[in-house]
Amino acid sequence: MAATTISQSALEAALVELRAFLGERVTAAEAAREHHSRGESAHPPGLPDMVCFPLSTEEVSRIVQVSARHRLPVVPFGAGTSLEGGVNAIRGGISLDMRQMNRVLRVSVPDMDATVEAGTSRLQLVKALENTGLTFFIDPGADATIGGMTATRASGTTAVKYGTMRENVLGLTVVLADGRVIRTGTRARKSSAGYDLTRLFVGSEGTLGVMTEITLRLHALPEAIAVAVCAFATIDGAVRTVIEAIQLGLGPARIEFMDDRLVDAVNRYSKIGLAVKPTLLMEFHGLSRAAVEETARMAEQLAREHGGLGFEFQTTAEGRERLWEARHNVYFAARALRPGCECVTTDVCVPISRLAECIVATRADLDTVSFPATIVGHVGDGNFHVQCMLEPGEDAEAETFAARLVERALAMGGTCTGEHGVGTGKMKYLTAEHGEGLEVMRLLKRTLDPENRMNPGKVIEVD
Amino acid sequence: MAATTISQSALEAALVELRAFLGERVTAAEAAREHHSRGESAHPPGLPDMVCFPLSTEEVSRIVQVSARHRLPVVPFGAGTSLEGGVNAIRGGISLDMRQMNRVLRVSVPDMDATVEAGTSRLQLVKALENTGLTFFIDPGADATIGGMTATRASGTTAVKYGTMRENVLGLTVVLADGRVIRTGTRARKSSAGYDLTRLFVGSEGTLGVMTEITLRLHALPEAIAVAVCAFATIDGAVRTVIEAIQLGLGPARIEFMDDRLVDAVNRYSKIGLAVKPTLLMEFHGLSRAAVEETARMAEQLAREHGGLGFEFQTTAEGRERLWEARHNVYFAARALRPGCECVTTDVCVPISRLAECIVATRADLDTVSFPATIVGHVGDGNFHVQCMLEPGEDAEAETFAARLVERALAMGGTCTGEHGVGTGKMKYLTAEHGEGLEVMRLLKRTLDPENRMNPGKVIEVD
Repeated sequence: MAATTISQSALEAALVELRAFLGERVTAAEAAREHHSRGESAHPPGLPDMVCFPLSTEEVSRIVQVSARHRLPVVPFGAGTSLEGGVNAIRGGISLDMRQMNRVLRVSVPDMDATVEAGTSRLQLVKALENTGLTFFIDPGADATIGGMTATRASGTTAVKYGTMRENVLGLTVVLADGRVIRTGTRARKSSAGYDLTRLFVGSEGTLGVMTEITLRLHALPEAIAVAVCAFATIDGAVRTVIEAIQLGLGPARIEFMDDRLVDAVNRYSKIGLAVKPTLLMEFHGLSRAAVEETARMAEQLAREHGGLGFEFQTTAEGRERLWEARHNVYFAARALRPGCECVTTDVCVPISRLAECIVATRADLDTVSFPATIVGHVGDGNFHVQCMLEPGEDAEAETFAARLVERALAMGGTCTGEHGVGTGKMKYLTAEHGEGLEVMRLLKRTLDPENRMNPGKVIEVD
Repeated sequence: MAATTISQSALEAALVELRAFLGERVTAAEAAREHHSRGESAHPPGLPDMVCFPLSTEEVSRIVQVSARHRLPVVPFGAGTSLEGGVNAIRGGISLDMRQMNRVLRVSVPDMDATVEAGTSRLQLVKALENTGLTFFIDPGADATIGGMTATRASGTTAVKYGTMRENVLGLTVVLADGRVIRTGTRARKSSAGYDLTRLFVGSEGTLGVMTEITLRLHALPEAIAVAVCAFATIDGAVRTVIEAIQLGLGPARIEFMDDRLVDAVNRYSKIGLAVKPTLLMEFHGLSRAAVEETARMAEQLAREHGGLGFEFQTTAEGRERLWEARHNVYFAARALRPGCECVTTDVCVPISRLAECIVATRADLDTVSFPATIVGHVGDGNFHVQCMLEPGEDAEAETFAARLVERALAMGGTCTGEHGVGTGKMKYLTAEHGEGLEVMRLLKRTLDPENRMNPGKVIEVD
């Protein structure tokens, strides 16, 4: 772990000041620091010097003011599901555990929006929306906090229809580096009144300020759902089906790809007996059973034209749930391919016209490495993940594979991460991706956080 | 017009430098300067000292470098349809007429995106997409340039389904204040790789840099369209119908409100004989005639429950066109209410739960003023416009009415402009709307344009 360069006296003074208003909700206990030193990734952990558990925006503001007085880093921490090292306190300082700020503050059914505290988890929100006819569809897999999802501009299986956090965050309460509190956006659906501060903070991974409250767009629960699985002779056929389904306006709510290796792993783990082929899992939402069935049949026709080996419809709620549960568990299914391994997941996103080519090239690349790996993708967005199952000593090989993957995606006009964020893991790719634009990002970081205290060493290096 | 404080020698030197690479495409002729002194608004015009007509991003960069050497303002100018004074050269300098940069650079059908130069007009792009099965749906009414629409974060009738420019701009080429060129975004549909520079520039109205190329999301042309008109007993009934239609997931492609006064004006101007009542114009897009008819019938049922006086379906392409043509021409219809008047249009946007209340209160407010006025709204977004038909001497009264309108919208959690932009016209409301957030916007402006040369005096005051 990186040693912190913070003086002991600064830490002690900060602790006294924090204890004055947080009481037991600040701790320098080893176990708490250890727990807050990393997310779910293999990136180098970083021990914070202390952990705070604020209950309100005002407390966050006071904590940030203490951090300013003593020049301590502030690292927001949600559910700890970060995959790129975003929550690791690599320069020590204060880990800001947001999980006690988890109230759903307001739900408006007519406006189809809600305001939550940043520590609210996705499933907490979904539960709070039961019986409203509305839901929050963005689902990155893990039960992440809304704050964490906002920070990484998360998305997941339903983004192809409902958008990512970029489209679904309507406004924010943000504590700036000097402790000032701003509110961005309004409750109106759209606005042309000045710079888009909301989207400046969405995806900023805590490096420009701490998001404490988030106003989200909600969506109507569909009246009818159709779910189908289809195996394909080739990866290309599966991707062409997706492209044409979107072009024709079939508007899939989810359209997920699994390569044959992952299907095999899922079959073993979730016992669902799919054909071991490149496979699409699809879901359509609509106003009536007739409407979604019409849509699904159009998709079936497209699949047939592209080497699809027949649609298998899931007509019961249980069947649908079993299928998506299996999709949700691909991480565990993949790990089970190599018991005891470490699973390192990376993601890229490319224009969908290049997706088949990118996946095929990546599969060929994986045939040259020593570790097993699987591919799963939110193909409607051109986004896919590679899970690498590593044994000790294979990290460097995986790292060079990941670098080739990113290089391939960038050469195709894509991005080094579709939804996982930059953290520390993807920083090295941003120059290639953004060119001179990275200098503008650096300017913004220096402007909003001149002392580099807000999640320092993440996303962008300014030292 | 505001006098410029630029020295004659600086202007002459700049002109010599510009002529060296622009030749005839820079002019200081009175007629060209006059033409570029204002958009369509009544806001005080501003004569630029010269007008440039660049052909490429590189030329824009060189022009901006000249402006930097001589400290001249740079004011981008598109179709000149700005309603809030955004294109007026209120501090002189260079008007940058982008209309010769109007090439559609690239269309990708599988990726459903296109890259255009900023001076391309909306209808030019729509025409270029003929026979692709795709289109660009955002329609602010005027045939604005894509650059202007991006600069003001424009939207229009179809935003309720297809989003605003915020959702539909995927990437930008931007010339910064020092002449550097950056490219924001990638061609991937989504990314978590760093700060969202694209959305920082969308809606910045040329105050942070000049956008020269824009990559846009396209949409599938619908297989089937249903259009209907419905008069309502009350404004509240019309708005409730809209709220429930969206909540149920009917997903209208357009849902427009006209108050009874405007319906009367439209009847006279476009000769279409609608009932003189609060009225909704609706359009539904779908995969088949059966699907859109099912959707429209659900909307009809909702309307009946809320005092709707019967759906009138437009079953022919001509009927649909006539109706939307009439909607497009509301500006002229309203002006014809008071021949020779000046029509001043303003817009606000509120949470839809407050929309009926806001429109009713605004209608009551309008009963107290001396000029006639009409209301038209993109009600699915909570956005509406008031057209005030003014005779000389009524400007001050209209201004105080507009201030009350904005105050009402802000008190309801709304915004001072849903889609027209800030320009000079709405600057005075931004403190009330953004509070401390305005200071952050000011910081961003100072950081990216430290000499305040990029469209100075618009959106945000930094002097």
